[in-house]
Amino acid sequence: MICENLGINHMGNLTLAGRDTVELAKKYQTPLFLMDEERIRKNYRTYIGAMKKYFGDDALPLYASKAASFRAIYKIAMEEGMGIDVVSCGEIYTAKSANFPMEEVYFHGNNKTDFDIKYAMENGIGYFVADSREEIDAIDGISGEMNLCQNIIIRITPGIDPHTYDAVATGKVDSKFGFAIATGAAEDIVKYALSKKNIKLCGFHCHVGSQVFDSDVYFKTADIMLEFIADMKSKFGYETEILNLGGGYGVRYIESDPVIDIEANIAQVAKMVKEKCSELRIDVPAIRMEPGRSIVADSGLTLYTVGSVKVIPEYKNYVSIDGGMADNPRFALYGSEYTVAVANKMNEECDFLCSVVGRCCECGDIIQENVQMPSSVKRGDTIAVMTTGAYNYSMASNYNRLQRPPIVMLTKTGEYTAVERESFEDIIKNDL
Amino acid sequence: MICENLGINHMGNLTLAGRDTVELAKKYQTPLFLMDEERIRKNYRTYIGAMKKYFGDDALPLYASKAASFRAIYKIAMEEGMGIDVVSCGEIYTAKSANFPMEEVYFHGNNKTDFDIKYAMENGIGYFVADSREEIDAIDGISGEMNLCQNIIIRITPGIDPHTYDAVATGKVDSKFGFAIATGAAEDIVKYALSKKNIKLCGFHCHVGSQVFDSDVYFKTADIMLEFIADMKSKFGYETEILNLGGGYGVRYIESDPVIDIEANIAQVAKMVKEKCSELRIDVPAIRMEPGRSIVADSGLTLYTVGSVKVIPEYKNYVSIDGGMADNPRFALYGSEYTVAVANKMNEECDFLCSVVGRCCECGDIIQENVQMPSSVKRGDTIAVMTTGAYNYSMASNYNRLQRPPIVMLTKTGEYTAVERESFEDIIKNDL
Repeated sequence: MICENLGINHMGNLTLAGRDTVELAKKYQTPLFLMDEERIRKNYRTYIGAMKKYFGDDALPLYASKAASFRAIYKIAMEEGMGIDVVSCGEIYTAKSANFPMEEVYFHGNNKTDFDIKYAMENGIGYFVADSREEIDAIDGISGEMNLCQNIIIRITPGIDPHTYDAVATGKVDSKFGFAIATGAAEDIVKYALSKKNIKLCGFHCHVGSQVFDSDVYFKTADIMLEFIADMKSKFGYETEILNLGGGYGVRYIESDPVIDIEANIAQVAKMVKEKCSELRIDVPAIRMEPGRSIVADSGLTLYTVGSVKVIPEYKNYVSIDGGMADNPRFALYGSEYTVAVANKMNEECDFLCSVVGRCCECGDIIQENVQMPSSVKRGDTIAVMTTGAYNYSMASNYNRLQRPPIVMLTKTGEYTAVERESFEDIIKNDL
Repeated sequence: MICENLGINHMGNLTLAGRDTVELAKKYQTPLFLMDEERIRKNYRTYIGAMKKYFGDDALPLYASKAASFRAIYKIAMEEGMGIDVVSCGEIYTAKSANFPMEEVYFHGNNKTDFDIKYAMENGIGYFVADSREEIDAIDGISGEMNLCQNIIIRITPGIDPHTYDAVATGKVDSKFGFAIATGAAEDIVKYALSKKNIKLCGFHCHVGSQVFDSDVYFKTADIMLEFIADMKSKFGYETEILNLGGGYGVRYIESDPVIDIEANIAQVAKMVKEKCSELRIDVPAIRMEPGRSIVADSGLTLYTVGSVKVIPEYKNYVSIDGGMADNPRFALYGSEYTVAVANKMNEECDFLCSVVGRCCECGDIIQENVQMPSSVKRGDTIAVMTTGAYNYSMASNYNRLQRPPIVMLTKTGEYTAVERESFEDIIKNDL
């Protein structure tokens, strides 16, 4: 199994967090997102524990909201003592609705409107992660109008290509995000930010990409960022308080993905950071990391019901399900790999090669190609797609006017609905 | 200009349907979907007029809801006398909310659940476009329980590759849709459907793909389908009432896309169909076509506001806007081409090559690469992306918890809001 929270019970059914997924599919109907709350908490604790232990008490992981943003996820983050990052007023609004404290909230994004900046400040946002000169001007102006001195950190592009696919490689010089060290833009913007009266520059952020398995990437990133911090100290006498290293330990989507020992990795990065700071004669900054996917991805699983099985001799076999790219567009977008199984036939031999396709009126609506499943698969069977806790609900649409599925959170003692299934009325609620 | 409904006014601002888009952006805020109602009506009339004229009075175009489904679009379709096709209960619900009559509604899709089938029958759906043996069984069963005899047509895959990109090439033998003639599956299913007591087989459907510019494709498709119809007549004595040729005349996204003369194309296909029917000694079936994109695409335009301009020497220039893949995922999904302009600087020279990127926290959030715009482009300018009436609002998500934009419909005499902008409260409405 991809993750230790998955299993098979005496009925031959797939379990998540010890619960029979086939029973849950019957109870809540499909498509259905399940999430394992204990797994989320365990992942949070792994990051918090390791960061405090190896970087010190001023270190803090921030949950990257974009992976999955809904009220319950912020309640859990709050209970576990995480900070968060957000990328929109909608995420701030959602976090606020869970009473999440705003002090350790970091507002990211390459395009913040004046409305966004005002809204965030009015709500006491902790930090802006400033991403452009225009944004710094806007923050300084609005901060002045509000008689504030707004904390910011600046997003830096260290020039690292993490050898992941382009769509999530965000640390390269050629990026819509941040300011490149290599071109001198980073140094210029530090000087510029330091000249602004209504801004307090608190440090720097970088993010080299998602789904990174190579720990070497973080060493290189930290190395470049600490050199930059030392350079800013020597050039401007600027002492960096916060260094945010971004997120991105990889999660297992398929068996061949490695298992990452997050604690060991953080320990190694911390050792390297401390040694480098000592060598450069700078204080160790308060470290932030921004795990999102690796907090929620392996807590999640999507259940569907098979509608038809098509065998096209000499071509391909198709298993159609009652969801698709509307609830999980990641194969359509990136060709993302997932592990797929027939949840009610886990002990049957898998000798039927097929494409698992969605119900949307579009050929590209594919959940996964080349899936092996029992040849007995038929209408009414329950299909499970694993590791869907990140970037599934958050990217879901009403394409084909399909209703977005609910999220049912499994707990130690039972389960609760964290997000309700959309109704037809919800879908047309803004149609006049 | 890509379409005749676009222009430039004395202020140097882009106009749609004669209206100043920059003024509309100020009035309604951005991101904003505009649609030109007269253009939609003109496109509807082109199809209805040409089909009635060349195929006869029993011919009817069906608006393909998936291109853009919201209440107002069905009101317009109803007023113009179109039928519609739908792919979900959500689309049926939306059409019903506009009092659209259900007799000329065709229910498509490769995966209809028992719930879908019941819901559609309870609402008096005209036809199911049956797509699998399992669906025919389910329709027959439910129809029997309800003491009905349900009209269906069967989706056939004629084995045509329209030389468009894979994601919208739906007529090939290797497809999740329909029954292939080449493999014998189509003949088998006709025999099977004819054996069912609670089903009335009314004809056949095929769809060879979207964004087809080559009229030859429709000749080939009709040729294959009519041969099949003659074959079914000779084998089973079955007289086909309806032949639905699907949708798909291409629309212009960029200058180099050809202008299609839809009336002339329909005239040619009609001539060919009549000759072929005569040759095969079969009656000319009642023809259906399913334009979706070509009804609404060129009525639409999206307006955004620039947030930042980044010049990365020796790499690339980035213009960031306040929307992105959440309201238009088509570049991220398919690398789709669009024409992009600075709406408030239409008369300035375009000598600044840039990527127009969205605000989502993801490198793949690109609206268009290699856009030429005035080098004076700056925060606050209005960006127009043209031909966004199809598959933009319908595919929009709340990714990054962004609110979906409103749709403002421009009319001869003014404008009205067809879909309201989502509120923050809307976004969390199902969070418990």
